[in-house]
Amino acid sequence: MPGVVEIQADLFGEPAGIPAQRFTARLSGTLIADGAGFATRPVPSLAVTLEGVPGDRHAGHSRPADSRVPWYPRGTPIRNARQLSLVAPDELAEIARRLGLREVRPEWIGANLVIEGVPRLTALPPGTRLHFPGGAALAVEGENAPCRHAGAAVAAACGEASAELDFPRLAGGLRGLVAWVEHAGELVADSPFEVHVPPQRLWTR
Amino acid sequence: MPGVVEIQADLFGEPAGIPAQRFTARLSGTLIADGAGFATRPVPSLAVTLEGVPGDRHAGHSRPADSRVPWYPRGTPIRNARQLSLVAPDELAEIARRLGLREVRPEWIGANLVIEGVPRLTALPPGTRLHFPGGAALAVEGENAPCRHAGAAVAAACGEASAELDFPRLAGGLRGLVAWVEHAGELVADSPFEVHVPPQRLWTR
Repeated sequence: MPGVVEIQADLFGEPAGIPAQRFTARLSGTLIADGAGFATRPVPSLAVTLEGVPGDRHAGHSRPADSRVPWYPRGTPIRNARQLSLVAPDELAEIARRLGLREVRPEWIGANLVIEGVPRLTALPPGTRLHFPGGAALAVEGENAPCRHAGAAVAAACGEASAELDFPRLAGGLRGLVAWVEHAGELVADSPFEVHVPPQRLWTR
Repeated sequence: MPGVVEIQADLFGEPAGIPAQRFTARLSGTLIADGAGFATRPVPSLAVTLEGVPGDRHAGHSRPADSRVPWYPRGTPIRNARQLSLVAPDELAEIARRLGLREVRPEWIGANLVIEGVPRLTALPPGTRLHFPGGAALAVEGENAPCRHAGAAVAAACGEASAELDFPRLAGGLRGLVAWVEHAGELVADSPFEVHVPPQRLWTR
C-alpha cells in the first residue's frame, strides 16, 4: 500500500522493528575549528581523544548549557555529546538548492567530518557507531538541528543575507549529525569506515 | 491488519515515524554499588555528577573496554555511557517468572534506579532524556543486555545455580537500561520525573 510502511509484529504482538545493520562508508574530509570563529578548515586527519578533537572549539568532556537545551540554566556544565559535526555532500547540496545558493560548504557550518555513502545521513539513529581504521570510534548523538548561528555563517560566506533565517527554516533533516568519541584514534581523510546501526524498534506508551 | 504496524509516510515518501513523547513517571528506588562487589544497596537519594554516581563502581568519564565491546582492545579507555543501571519492577517480575524464581531484586543485578510508570522500560529508545526535580537529567544509552556476570549474582542471591545461565538466555529485553548523566543534581527515591522520548523514525539504507 503506497504511503505506508508495514512492520511485522513479533511473537509478543510488538512491532518487530529492524535488525542491526552494518556497511562500509567513506570519510572524504576532516576539518577542525581551531580559529577564532565557528568555521572549520580542512586538515589531513584528526587525532581524536575521549574529549573530542583536541584544539577544536567543541572539545571537552562537558560543555556549558546553551540555547539548544533551554531547560538547563544557561552556562551550567552538561555532558558534551556534541564533540564532532558530521555532514554529507548530498544533503548540503539539497540545502543549497532550497536556499537558492550554488553551494553550502562543510567548513562554513563548522563540520568536522564529511561523510559519503550513508543515505539520509541526518536520519541515522542515535546510538549508531562509526568504526574507523586503526581503532577510533564515534557514537551518533543525533540530528544536528540547524540554528540561526550556522545560518549567519552561511549568509556571511555566500553574501546572501536571507540565508541567515532561511537556513534554520529549510535545512532541517539535512544539516547532519553530532557525535561523541567512544574510542580514541585517528580519523584520516579519504578512507573507508564501518557503520554499525543498532536494532531499531518504535516505542510508544 | 493484525500482526502489522502501519506507519504513515510523510510528504517525501519516507516513513513519518513517531513524534516526540513526554510523560511523567516515578523513581521508586535509588541504590548504589559502593561495596566490594556488583550488588547495590538502597539509599534515600543519589547526588549524581557528570561522572555518574560518586563512589559507585560504574562512575567515571571513561571506563575500560570489556567483553561487551570486544571490538576494542580489552582495558583500553572508552567513554563511559553506562554510568547508571535502570530497572522496572514489572520487567524484573517477568524475568523471575521465566527463571522460576519468586523474585529478582534490583540490588542483586546492580540496579541504581527503580523506575515505575514506563511501559516496556527496556525498549525506550537511545537518546531519551529523564528530567528529575531539581535539575538532574539522564540520557538513555540503550538496553542493558543481560550478561552471565549478572546471572551469577542472581544465582548466588537466590540459591538456584541454574539462574547463572538462564538469566542471560531469558532476560533479554527485560533487564532495563543503562544511562549517563547529562546534568548534575539529586535523584530522590519516591519522587516523580519527566520522560522526554525523542522523535523516532526507522532508518534503512
